[in-house]
Amino acid sequence: KNFDIALIPGDGIGPEVVTEGVKVLKAIEKMDTKLSFSFTEFPWGCEHYLKTGKMMDDDGINKLRHFDAIYLGAVGYPGVPDHISLWELLLRIRKEFDQYVNLRPVTLLNQSLTPLKSKTEEDIDFLVIRENSEGEYAGAGDRLFKGQPEEVVLQTGVFSRKGTERIIRYAYEEARKSNRTLTSISKGNALNYSMVFWDEVIEEVGKEYPDVETYSYLVDAASLYLVSDPERFEVVVTSNLFGDIITDLGAGITGGLGLATGANVNPEKQYPSMFEPVHGSAPDIAGKGIANPIAAIWSVSQMLDFFGEERWGKAVLTTIQDMVKETEMLTPDLGGNAATGDVGDSFIEKLKIT
Amino acid sequence: KNFDIALIPGDGIGPEVVTEGVKVLKAIEKMDTKLSFSFTEFPWGCEHYLKTGKMMDDDGINKLRHFDAIYLGAVGYPGVPDHISLWELLLRIRKEFDQYVNLRPVTLLNQSLTPLKSKTEEDIDFLVIRENSEGEYAGAGDRLFKGQPEEVVLQTGVFSRKGTERIIRYAYEEARKSNRTLTSISKGNALNYSMVFWDEVIEEVGKEYPDVETYSYLVDAASLYLVSDPERFEVVVTSNLFGDIITDLGAGITGGLGLATGANVNPEKQYPSMFEPVHGSAPDIAGKGIANPIAAIWSVSQMLDFFGEERWGKAVLTTIQDMVKETEMLTPDLGGNAATGDVGDSFIEKLKIT
Ligand SMILES: CC(C)[C@H](C(=O)O)[C@@H](O)C(=O)O
Ligand SMILES: CC(C)[C@H](C(=O)O)[C@@H](O)C(=O)O
Repeated sequence: KNFDIALIPGDGIGPEVVTEGVKVLKAIEKMDTKLSFSFTEFPWGCEHYLKTGKMMDDDGINKLRHFDAIYLGAVGYPGVPDHISLWELLLRIRKEFDQYVNLRPVTLLNQSLTPLKSKTEEDIDFLVIRENSEGEYAGAGDRLFKGQPEEVVLQTGVFSRKGTERIIRYAYEEARKSNRTLTSISKGNALNYSMVFWDEVIEEVGKEYPDVETYSYLVDAASLYLVSDPERFEVVVTSNLFGDIITDLGAGITGGLGLATGANVNPEKQYPSMFEPVHGSAPDIAGKGIANPIAAIWSVSQMLDFFGEERWGKAVLTTIQDMVKETEMLTPDLGGNAATGDVGDSFIEKLKIT
Repeated sequence: KNFDIALIPGDGIGPEVVTEGVKVLKAIEKMDTKLSFSFTEFPWGCEHYLKTGKMMDDDGINKLRHFDAIYLGAVGYPGVPDHISLWELLLRIRKEFDQYVNLRPVTLLNQSLTPLKSKTEEDIDFLVIRENSEGEYAGAGDRLFKGQPEEVVLQTGVFSRKGTERIIRYAYEEARKSNRTLTSISKGNALNYSMVFWDEVIEEVGKEYPDVETYSYLVDAASLYLVSDPERFEVVVTSNLFGDIITDLGAGITGGLGLATGANVNPEKQYPSMFEPVHGSAPDIAGKGIANPIAAIWSVSQMLDFFGEERWGKAVLTTIQDMVKETEMLTPDLGGNAATGDVGDSFIEKLKIT
């Protein structure tokens, strides 16, 4: 089987970490004669914007449409406002390709990595399913009386029945399939339209899944539980914004953004899905060869799962798990002194199907 | 000086913890002949609602108008939807009395209380200044095509120039006065109207405070830093919703909601300010005499500061600090086995101006 992968290395450390992920895919190709990957690179991002005035080509979305997957490094650059660099590339792809499911595992790979006292690998192991196409990120709003004393700025979250039902149903299916509980995170006591609706849909759809134990937490309480009782969580479903916050917090309790991955999935496969480390472009450390490629390699594991190559997906994850046990082989953010490329090299040496 | 205090004990454990706070104020009255407090109790809350169909009297706001302060326990009860119990009492008071500043200290009183490895009292000590009158909590929105496949629910955050400027200016004044840094928490990369505006106002107002070192974090990154580097934060200013999340997380890293207080302040004193523990009504433990009254007593400390009685405010806080060092004198949630009333009793025994 051949898979066509579009590479968008992007800015800052993006290209450095994507190089390592590609190294892993090429190593797999060598080890498994039934699999092959082809790569097409797109030089899009903020540097491209500074040269051309565009984050991606005008027909960029069309150029990407027929790939099996998009592998993205990171986007963002000092001098390009975030709401341009992201809205015209990352968020645009998520939306135009209807990648409405954002899958973000929060898994403690090694007890030494968590800042939490007395929590072990068993205590922190859950999957956040973040709504990824609408909600607070709809981009709807207005700014009235600009510059006047009576100026008022409106930001409208848009929660459609279709969008809310499909993400909640996806999460219930995942919980059922893996025999885990489902926890919904919302804020119905303050967000009196959107989150009251969210809670209603959870209840409605929940009726179809009487076998799945369901919990519902307010986002404030959930944030507290993430540091006091992370063992409460198994499968989590939440809105776009809350998912953003909860998963960074999840990264915080499992060793940082150098170890956090996210898959932006269009489950119907009408459009390509996108795989990316959660971290940003980190311009301060770009080009120094010290960027941690593990999150980007974990994205490769998610991509392989998505391709139906779960045996390889699991092999990659197991190898990551082995690697984080030996600090010397890791980058400085995890207490090691290896260079980005060395991490990738030792990774492919260890990688095997078990 | 006499201060008139309106008591709204509310539901669940609310009355139990308010009793202890009042005990402390009465003890102070005995020790300081220049001070007196009078109390008027209002039986409002969810039980009242279940009896009368109203969370508070129709002219409740008027009844409260002339008090020097409102001391609230907790509101919420199974069977009364949160968006009623809160919007018709707690949130209504915050808004109608223009209590636009929510002051929430995040202070680790004792190293043993934090779930974070290797963080000490010095590392976790900051003040969150939460916008408390508008923003995501404006209550604006709509629900269209209810029950139809094309149903869509809108929730609009409302950020006025007046509301945004005044909270940011208040925070800058606080940072300047106390010679601390100011950290703004926002999300301009995704909330393309409201938070882009917030960031602009931070920059504008910041120009008037060149002596205050200012940082600006995305809410996702800030959540991560709260567990990895809480020492980054000194004075924090943020929106209503983000403040809600950040302060519960703050409670999480300092020992839980049993130790978290919030002052809802109208700085111009046009209307009464309200003091309340951050925790909820905890119906599961109500009536058992095990509710932790420390957060409610901390609210009394904030009230005394607000009255200009900072010596007493500080005395109360110092006594709290002493008390949390001896686990036996605390309630079960903090590892002790004292009853709610015993905590208050030993508190007033220890209390003195130093
Ligand atoms: C870069 C930003 C727009 C993005 C988000 O908020 O979704 C990021 O924080 C993430 O979590 O993928
Ligand atoms: C009860 C609820 C509406 C409230 C809020 O969200 O503001 C509470 O969580 C708080 O933090 O005071």
